Amino acid sequence: MELPEQDAAHMARAVALAARGHGATSPNPVVGCVVLDAGGAVAGEGFHAYAGGPHAEIGALAEAGERARGGTAYVTLEPCDHTGRTGPCSRALLDAGIARVVVAVADPNPKAAGGAARLRAAGVEVTTGVLAAEAGRVNEEWLTYARLGRSHVTWKFAATLDGRSAAADGSSQWITSPEARADVHRMRAAADAIVAGVGTVLADDPRLTARPDGPSAGRRPPLRVVVDTEARTPPDARVFDDLAPTLLAVADDADTGRLKADILRLPRHGSGLDLRALLTELAAREVVGAFLEGGPALAGSFLREGLTDRVVAYVAPALLGSGRAALGPAGVGTIGAVHRLTFDEISPIGPDVRLIARPVAQPSREQ
Amino acid sequence: MELPEQDAAHMARAVALAARGHGATSPNPVVGCVVLDAGGAVAGEGFHAYAGGPHAEIGALAEAGERARGGTAYVTLEPCDHTGRTGPCSRALLDAGIARVVVAVADPNPKAAGGAARLRAAGVEVTTGVLAAEAGRVNEEWLTYARLGRSHVTWKFAATLDGRSAAADGSSQWITSPEARADVHRMRAAADAIVAGVGTVLADDPRLTARPDGPSAGRRPPLRVVVDTEARTPPDARVFDDLAPTLLAVADDADTGRLKADILRLPRHGSGLDLRALLTELAAREVVGAFLEGGPALAGSFLREGLTDRVVAYVAPALLGSGRAALGPAGVGTIGAVHRLTFDEISPIGPDVRLIARPVAQPSREQ
Ligand SMILES: NC(=O)c1ccc[n+]([C@@H]2O[C@H](COP(=O)([O-])OP(=O)(O)OC[C@H]3O[C@@H](n4cnc5c(N)ncnc54)[C@H](OP(=O)(O)O)[C@@H]3O)[C@@H](O)[C@H]2O)c1
Ligand SMILES: NC(=O)c1ccc[n+]([C@@H]2O[C@H](COP(=O)([O-])OP(=O)(O)OC[C@H]3O[C@@H](n4cnc5c(N)ncnc54)[C@H](OP(=O)(O)O)[C@@H]3O)[C@@H](O)[C@H]2O)c1
Repeated sequence: MELPEQDAAHMARAVALAARGHGATSPNPVVGCVVLDAGGAVAGEGFHAYAGGPHAEIGALAEAGERARGGTAYVTLEPCDHTGRTGPCSRALLDAGIARVVVAVADPNPKAAGGAARLRAAGVEVTTGVLAAEAGRVNEEWLTYARLGRSHVTWKFAATLDGRSAAADGSSQWITSPEARADVHRMRAAADAIVAGVGTVLADDPRLTARPDGPSAGRRPPLRVVVDTEARTPPDARVFDDLAPTLLAVADDADTGRLKADILRLPRHGSGLDLRALLTELAAREVVGAFLEGGPALAGSFLREGLTDRVVAYVAPALLGSGRAALGPAGVGTIGAVHRLTFDEISPIGPDVRLIARPVAQPSREQ
Repeated sequence: MELPEQDAAHMARAVALAARGHGATSPNPVVGCVVLDAGGAVAGEGFHAYAGGPHAEIGALAEAGERARGGTAYVTLEPCDHTGRTGPCSRALLDAGIARVVVAVADPNPKAAGGAARLRAAGVEVTTGVLAAEAGRVNEEWLTYARLGRSHVTWKFAATLDGRSAAADGSSQWITSPEARADVHRMRAAADAIVAGVGTVLADDPRLTARPDGPSAGRRPPLRVVVDTEARTPPDARVFDDLAPTLLAVADDADTGRLKADILRLPRHGSGLDLRALLTELAAREVVGAFLEGGPALAGSFLREGLTDRVVAYVAPALLGSGRAALGPAGVGTIGAVHRLTFDEISPIGPDVRLIARPVAQPSREQ
């Protein structure tokens, strides 16, 4: 089947609308919708702007009003069929008299799925899979969360061109530019959790808060998660300030006597904690996207376990030649076992460069 | 003084013409020239295409013919005033009746300089410094060579996103893509010498030849230089094949008994050879641009000595977490002493990214 060009163009617009909700809809997906009237003219547009807010279809249908009758709706994600905080969108599309629905990605969530089937049963023409890759990309975090039942993980690091994140004496302020650090704060603010290892907490006593100056400044602060097998985080560590909630992930037999923190007990795995179990528990707490900030040891373990979904590298135009490596052991002994990625984006950020990459499926690594 | 817009536009064209000679004019500079007639219309263009070939001005004047009389010549480098393999260009400009000469960069070479002065003395209007930065960039190697009396050094490395150039077991084939490797061969072919440390020769037995498939395939092959304090390179190493000449740089007291190679004796410096002396000797052999290919130890020394003029990094979308670092000790103990660069170019090369950077002047490092 050849795609009508209009379908692709309207869906691209719906994907762009969906993207506007990025970082604000969690634990819901981002969704965009474009409604055409029976003559093929755009009559309404909508997107899901925040959790609990109206679904994209509802906004677009409201804008279209009577013009929706006999028209076409483009939706980036299969319309829901369940009554949650808002009514089912499948019902709303039928009530509005939409004659054709074009869907990019089928809903992997069994609670919400069934929208396409209900529409078909009611005589609506339904086309699926239009710009599925693009619509999947914009919803990457949520689809990982919905399909795998675990949080999506973005690992961020900052390093010199030779891959070092501190000099030989441990000093590292500042390798990257203020522009890059501001960009990190924006990324953090769009995440549901910021994750770090106890090594980083002991070395740097970081706040792990998002201090963006941009539009997401008003959102609830991301959960701070410290991966701390033996509960070594000091009670007066900055992560325990009251700027954001903090979860301490410890081994199920760890002694947490002196800590009055929110504790998550996890099985041990190798020499640390079971990170897959961690991500499942975080998903249960509605953490869709987790932002992993280090350090090298924890990042290496996430990578080795196949639990890194996106890598964001801030590379400074600088060379050290010695000092701490940005990434610790990741289970690779020989070049054939290297963790292969693909670059999604290469962008200058101030004097630095930001490289966004994602692992490619490697047959030898599949679990 | 405000620059007439036309001056900048014509000089930009001359710079673009100069760039066409890149990699083929050594030990001469690249030069571009645009000649306007008295009415301001372009009458002739020229560039220096290969060492021994006509100078840019001569080509442009020949193309302009009688139209040059009363006209303007834009030249990226001050016209020469000496009679070398071709006559002095200052003379040719006067003979052609040029009324105004616009120069980007003054000639730092005492043998060739004086062109502007001779033209002025003959009543020609001379403007200098127009687009000097751009014209300097295109002639970067030659200007370093002419001003400092040493070869210009480009350090190239290939690494993963975490700065590693081999896995823990030493395997490294292939970290970067065929596209990146072809690009390296083009870069090598444009250099006058390819330099490597004996560590690399002992570990990999590389050929250090340029095997480009492009236009520079016909040029004389770059000189291979092995930096080998104690003359440990085996007599049957591939660098001694007959595909290109090879120079073995050794300590002045090294025992080279069994080697029938072309030997360059140098003073010791620290635990190795005096690299500044090496570059001065290479300049004496008309090596304008040297391409340093490793390994990490030698690259670290060049950087520490302030002898790295350009860095070309091929970064693969891959992560290792262990294995050999791309850069060895470079004299940096703390973050304040980091080698700061600026990115000149960020380009995708196949699936990889190529980052071209150059050191920024650091007051604390000035010698
Ligand atoms: N440049 C950057 O972007 C950046 C970002 C963050 C941090 N850093 C630097 O990184 C350094 C700390 O890094 P690090 O590597 O020592 O420590 P880390 O990665 O922050 O934390 C490692 C610790 O996490 C615990 N852990 C629990 N489960 C684990 C598992 N499955 N795998 C790995 N670790 C697990 C372990 O604690 P137990 O040993 O108690 O079991 C382990 O020692 C600091 O100096 C900091 O400055 C740099
Ligand atoms: N990925 C890449 O782009 C790439 C490129 C090239 C090489 N490599 C790898 O690099 C490895 C070899 O690197 P390496 O670091 O061991 O050796 P290297 O840098 O190739 O050579 C170092 C040797 O050069 C000699 N030298 C003389 N003067 C020196 C000075 N001033 N500073 C430093 N060295 C001086 C010394 O020999 P003496 O000890 O005899 O004094 C020293 O041991 C190989 O495994 C190779 O595969 C990777």
